[in-house]
Amino acid sequence: MQLEKHLIDEHNHQLFKKHSRNFEHIAADIDGIDSLLNKLKAFNVAIPSWALGTGGTRFGRFSGGGEPRSLEEKLEDVGLIHALNKSSNSISLHIPWDIPDNAAAIKALAAQLGLHFDAVNSNTFQDQSAQQHSYKFGSLHHVDKAVRQQAVEHNLQVVKYGVELGSKALSVWLSDGSNFPGQLNFRGAFQNTLESLQQIYAGLPDDWKVWVEYKPYEPNFYSTTIGDWGQSYLLASKLGPKASTLVDLGHHLQGTNIEQIVSILLMEGKLAGFHFNDSKYGDDDLTVGSINPYQLFLIFNELVEGLDARGMNHATGIGWMIDASHNVKDPIEDLLQSVQAIKIAYAQALLVDKVALQAAQQSNDVALAQEVLQAAYRTDVRPLIAEASLANGGSLDPLATFRKLKVREQLIAQRGLKTVATGL
Amino acid sequence: MQLEKHLIDEHNHQLFKKHSRNFEHIAADIDGIDSLLNKLKAFNVAIPSWALGTGGTRFGRFSGGGEPRSLEEKLEDVGLIHALNKSSNSISLHIPWDIPDNAAAIKALAAQLGLHFDAVNSNTFQDQSAQQHSYKFGSLHHVDKAVRQQAVEHNLQVVKYGVELGSKALSVWLSDGSNFPGQLNFRGAFQNTLESLQQIYAGLPDDWKVWVEYKPYEPNFYSTTIGDWGQSYLLASKLGPKASTLVDLGHHLQGTNIEQIVSILLMEGKLAGFHFNDSKYGDDDLTVGSINPYQLFLIFNELVEGLDARGMNHATGIGWMIDASHNVKDPIEDLLQSVQAIKIAYAQALLVDKVALQAAQQSNDVALAQEVLQAAYRTDVRPLIAEASLANGGSLDPLATFRKLKVREQLIAQRGLKTVATGL
Amino acid sequence: MQLEKHLIDEHNHQLFKKHSRNFEHIAADIDGIDSLLNKLKAFNVAIPSWALGTGGTRFGRFSGGGEPRSLEEKLEDVGLIHALNKSSNSISLHIPWDIPDNAAAIKALAAQLGLHFDAVNSNTFQDQSAQQHSYKFGSLHHVDKAVRQQAVEHNLQVVKYGVELGSKALSVWLSDGSNFPGQLNFRGAFQNTLESLQQIYAGLPDDWKVWVEYKPYEPNFYSTTIGDWGQSYLLASKLGPKASTLVDLGHHLQGTNIEQIVSILLMEGKLAGFHFNDSKYGDDDLTVGSINPYQLFLIFNELVEGLDARGMNHATGIGWMIDASHNVKDPIEDLLQSVQAIKIAYAQALLVDKVALQAAQQSNDVALAQEVLQAAYRTDVRPLIAEASLANGGSLDPLATFRKLKVREQLIAQRGLKTVATGL
Amino acid sequence: MQLEKHLIDEHNHQLFKKHSRNFEHIAADIDGIDSLLNKLKAFNVAIPSWALGTGGTRFGRFSGGGEPRSLEEKLEDVGLIHALNKSSNSISLHIPWDIPDNAAAIKALAAQLGLHFDAVNSNTFQDQSAQQHSYKFGSLHHVDKAVRQQAVEHNLQVVKYGVELGSKALSVWLSDGSNFPGQLNFRGAFQNTLESLQQIYAGLPDDWKVWVEYKPYEPNFYSTTIGDWGQSYLLASKLGPKASTLVDLGHHLQGTNIEQIVSILLMEGKLAGFHFNDSKYGDDDLTVGSINPYQLFLIFNELVEGLDARGMNHATGIGWMIDASHNVKDPIEDLLQSVQAIKIAYAQALLVDKVALQAAQQSNDVALAQEVLQAAYRTDVRPLIAEASLANGGSLDPLATFRKLKVREQLIAQRGLKTVATGL
Repeated sequence: MQLEKHLIDEHNHQLFKKHSRNFEHIAADIDGIDSLLNKLKAFNVAIPSWALGTGGTRFGRFSGGGEPRSLEEKLEDVGLIHALNKSSNSISLHIPWDIPDNAAAIKALAAQLGLHFDAVNSNTFQDQSAQQHSYKFGSLHHVDKAVRQQAVEHNLQVVKYGVELGSKALSVWLSDGSNFPGQLNFRGAFQNTLESLQQIYAGLPDDWKVWVEYKPYEPNFYSTTIGDWGQSYLLASKLGPKASTLVDLGHHLQGTNIEQIVSILLMEGKLAGFHFNDSKYGDDDLTVGSINPYQLFLIFNELVEGLDARGMNHATGIGWMIDASHNVKDPIEDLLQSVQAIKIAYAQALLVDKVALQAAQQSNDVALAQEVLQAAYRTDVRPLIAEASLANGGSLDPLATFRKLKVREQLIAQRGLKTVATGL
Repeated sequence: MQLEKHLIDEHNHQLFKKHSRNFEHIAADIDGIDSLLNKLKAFNVAIPSWALGTGGTRFGRFSGGGEPRSLEEKLEDVGLIHALNKSSNSISLHIPWDIPDNAAAIKALAAQLGLHFDAVNSNTFQDQSAQQHSYKFGSLHHVDKAVRQQAVEHNLQVVKYGVELGSKALSVWLSDGSNFPGQLNFRGAFQNTLESLQQIYAGLPDDWKVWVEYKPYEPNFYSTTIGDWGQSYLLASKLGPKASTLVDLGHHLQGTNIEQIVSILLMEGKLAGFHFNDSKYGDDDLTVGSINPYQLFLIFNELVEGLDARGMNHATGIGWMIDASHNVKDPIEDLLQSVQAIKIAYAQALLVDKVALQAAQQSNDVALAQEVLQAAYRTDVRPLIAEASLANGGSLDPLATFRKLKVREQLIAQRGLKTVATGL
Repeated sequence: MQLEKHLIDEHNHQLFKKHSRNFEHIAADIDGIDSLLNKLKAFNVAIPSWALGTGGTRFGRFSGGGEPRSLEEKLEDVGLIHALNKSSNSISLHIPWDIPDNAAAIKALAAQLGLHFDAVNSNTFQDQSAQQHSYKFGSLHHVDKAVRQQAVEHNLQVVKYGVELGSKALSVWLSDGSNFPGQLNFRGAFQNTLESLQQIYAGLPDDWKVWVEYKPYEPNFYSTTIGDWGQSYLLASKLGPKASTLVDLGHHLQGTNIEQIVSILLMEGKLAGFHFNDSKYGDDDLTVGSINPYQLFLIFNELVEGLDARGMNHATGIGWMIDASHNVKDPIEDLLQSVQAIKIAYAQALLVDKVALQAAQQSNDVALAQEVLQAAYRTDVRPLIAEASLANGGSLDPLATFRKLKVREQLIAQRGLKTVATGL
Repeated sequence: MQLEKHLIDEHNHQLFKKHSRNFEHIAADIDGIDSLLNKLKAFNVAIPSWALGTGGTRFGRFSGGGEPRSLEEKLEDVGLIHALNKSSNSISLHIPWDIPDNAAAIKALAAQLGLHFDAVNSNTFQDQSAQQHSYKFGSLHHVDKAVRQQAVEHNLQVVKYGVELGSKALSVWLSDGSNFPGQLNFRGAFQNTLESLQQIYAGLPDDWKVWVEYKPYEPNFYSTTIGDWGQSYLLASKLGPKASTLVDLGHHLQGTNIEQIVSILLMEGKLAGFHFNDSKYGDDDLTVGSINPYQLFLIFNELVEGLDARGMNHATGIGWMIDASHNVKDPIEDLLQSVQAIKIAYAQALLVDKVALQAAQQSNDVALAQEVLQAAYRTDVRPLIAEASLANGGSLDPLATFRKLKVREQLIAQRGLKTVATGL
């Protein structure tokens, strides 16, 4: 299904008076409101194909209804999200879950929905039925060259699919690691990984990038071979200019200062982009901004500052993507909340008085620096997000419109109550 | 299959000379060696039925071969473990994974293998196909009384199965919790849980106990309704003398001093028992003693001290059980390693010079207290474990014997390479 | 020094037009704005005497200028804070740092500044020069009864000072614990602590309370004898109705769900009150709301809900106090920021649509429950805080007024640049 | 004071019979016992000058008696330690705490005690009375070039002192960081640090190294400018071949896999060396091996493997040093326990059957790999340590001899009960 624009407009109409009052109130306080709105209008966050179904844990999964049963239906769902928020104009595919039978048709469908294809993701953390070698003990880091080779070829195959769809980046997340002391020779595992990545790197088209993700633990519980930003950076440096480091917010030990890592990677020209989610304990993959929205703001504050310092375009300078699991919420609603939270953090970061902040920093006026940051953070920027969405043809309140238009009910009617989308 | 004792004896024979030299060396240094060996001989750790198959994570599962396909085969596996180590004389069942069709026959089979039935475990963290209400949003804490009632009845049904098999305790682990702020009213959730547990408590036979487990997170990632020992203790206190707190080593935030909790629960008469495993990050469910064996020793040091202080029997005073997941090891081998590690920690704790330790404590001689503890910990107690096993008719080196006798190969021959045991 | 009200009024006058526009904008959206403002106007947070000087770490302390050199000057500083924000009408003293030579004169000075005396705090974590026994190995938990007795008497002495000043509660924080395994018998330490607290409890005046604080680690790095809320609760239960549990936000392991603990303690009638601060790693004692303001809001959401459920007065039902360390900010500025952050969180919690939240919870509408909470949190409530302060005779922007009126410069002129207040 | 060798010999004589029995028992099982003993005999761990006095926390310090009052007495204490364990033949000085008035005399005293000078440590985390600029807001990363310059010059001055004493390395630990979001521009702080370090690097003598330490938090509680190994590695890489990364065991977030970091730094030729201690929570600075001795063993396992792989000498290939705080133990006793624990872990690592381990790794035999590691770890290697000490002329049981000879009592008699050594 697709949302007819006039239905969104009708709902906007009901919300408009209240919005207008709020927007005018805040707009009067902002210098350069048009420039700020233009940035918000240009900003998009990719939706991962695997996030459109209900997620689960090792203890179980409680599926919802109307989940997409095919790649086409996944595109349809992203199309719905984008129609509502006008900030989700791409999808990130996962191979082998999303192998397109007919790339041209898929590409045409995407174009019709106003979508394009973000980074493609390989999967060497699970075994597929037809697969010769098992990844039980890893893939690109495996002690057996035959296994590594199989994993390298899979990645190159993923690139091939990506090329057909117009993607420009390969995103590599490896679960390779160990559960017990002694299981791995760390040095050997690292060198094998490097050698495998070098083969993949050699097979990248000229205009492609490879994004190397890191994660400290899970599904391995003693070591992960690309376990932190330093290890990813080391690999990316050895690989070359097309390689950089992908930051997933949930892939850090408790207490990690993620915003500092972001700043340093940007400084070194090695920040590939983001996988957004939120967490309280580990890689909890919760709705973005649901647990610690101030941290999200602080990260965006570094991003805006760092991208500006290098003269990079906010919207396209790095990759923006959500990577969350929706265990107890409707996946589309969860994604709408996540994109909204990201845009709020971005708008707040844009509102930071950089001149005042820099002056406070230069004079070590710590209390004032905090005042400057929190003045932006405490501002209610929701009217700005709404205005940008409205100007782009989206909804003033995407989640409310989604419910008002009974989208999920229609999807269930079309697809059935007992559907399980591929993914985690 | 069952292991013929003469095969174990033959392997022991090969190992005996080396063992004998080592045992004599250490035995000469120990006062009361017989008493110590008797304690080791009497010590048993229950095996959970769900730990006999390969475990997995939300990212995938890589099954091994020859896994048990039925409750009978699970008993068979525990029988093999017990034949080898003579320290695993009971099994803990999980309902509905292990519903016995014919309780009398199962009981007879167990008796034949020298086994009995430890605590039975209920499952309200997954939905079963025939189930009326879903546990997606919890069970005993659910806002809907009908769901709570269904979960209460399931627990009472589990008790009924347990009675038929001769169990004496119901172990309750609830995944009930929330993924997001606002999802739950904490007070309401706690009160609902208490009320549900009171109904279950009322249905316990006179000679039964209920063990209330706690866990801070996973599968819920914002709150868990029985989230720490304090909350479990509060419930157990309100329930009455048959209720107490079960400690799973992996169910703590990083840095928790578990041994102190153990000491306090023992002091209050509210320590039900243990679920053993090891972990580096969260509830990693790794082989016992594989990550932090000193912590395991410190816990046993408190257990021995606390049980002695209350005049409780080491072997039967509280419940001893393994609860681990075997993602990359043969489950039986993993369990053999776990039981071995537990017995080592127990033997080391028995070796602690309590008089010297108490004297050091009374004079705040911190360096000496550490020396006393570490003198026991640094002792190589493997010959003591081996001697106790030998005396009980088991193997001097259970894991080596398991491999020598090609047990897994035989199980695969009987059961096939592609088997997946029920469990996580 | 004292601030003349007309100076504050003059600054308010300059800020008034902007404030008025903002306040009118938000007030129009709030049902029951008067009731809400009344709650904000009645709300006060106590200032600890030791927070008025620059704090430090074991690595050093970098003092600022104009710090209070006496109890009188500490009162003066709290008077300044209260004059600016009208929300800090009490001071919490620490004995022996703040022993009043002339209680009557001190009480009169406080009254003149509009202040009274909150809970008094004992100190058995440091040795004083004249002291007979050392607290190196603890105080109320000590193996030596003479040391325990000395610590008990110190606490009773603190109560005596408190009675003279009109305090109504004794706040007990013990650093008692151990640095190494084996150092303590946990059970003995707990029993000694209980026995000591019972003696103190017996000496409390009829209308007094004793607040038992907990903390997992620091300054002891293996165990702390009152290490978590469960242990504090256990002690408070055994002591009786005058004893309850004090929650310091920084005294938790990473990941602890503090708001859930708050809810449960309130439910059990055992929540004494709060020590506010913020932290990223351990007991960092940073400005309230500077690291995770959403968590602060969630805690206040539980407080408002729980106090209302028991019909308790928000302002006086439990104790509210700041306990932070000001290592790199002007202490008064830091305290002004902290009180402001607390009032913001409180106002946001008051704005939560309880009916909508409860309805969402009852129907397990998790996405909506989050929307309801975040609608309140994302509201810019600063105009409400400002209006309440103005109505009470305080400043619309206390920190800005503090700077505008050059208060610190005047304090330095009076007290000197090289002053070091007592405290940590 | 110095220990007369015959007194140590006499105590050894009393212990010899028991030792001999134990040593012979284990020696018979070890291939290449002489080679192993030679490695143990060659192994030394430096003692930091600041660890010879009682440490403390921000909450207080409880000094012991007989602490060294001068650099000469610090050398004396290290001489005592070395006489007892024959494994502590160097001291690491800290400037300005240990500025030698007469370098030649100090060097001669050291030589007489069999000691030399390990890395020298600079201090820019505290202000000294005569200092022009304050380090309140950092040193090498400071926004003000004048402050940076002062800190650079201090470091170069430290090198000068080191040259006079025969040191060959400068150890730089910076507390530079921030307590609050907004306080720092991370990029600017990093670049300033790099520029400052480059100046120091330029001033290093040809045969010197600079060791760059990292730490995630404390004394700053929001960010630290050299916060993790990746940031230190990045700086060391940009500086050049004389720069490398120093690992302090306590300077990691909870859960960090330190042994993996060690392996990677060794692989990259960038591991400077170690600061040993142990911890349960943060930078607790407890006795080495007192909390998690298995982790210490796993680190040594990587060190032995990695040093061998690069053909580096175990004893001299990298720097070995203790860096702990002794809050409740006699500092000398604590250091003796720490060195003992390090040697035990080293001996266990030497005992690992590398061929068997590699074979298990190559076949992904995870259970066997664990067996191989734990076979070494569970071995009681204390007789090997004792034998190596004896052969070097040291004590069979250094701590016991220290007590037997009443060394502390003599130091108190000489130096007094109320002494406070410089340091933390």
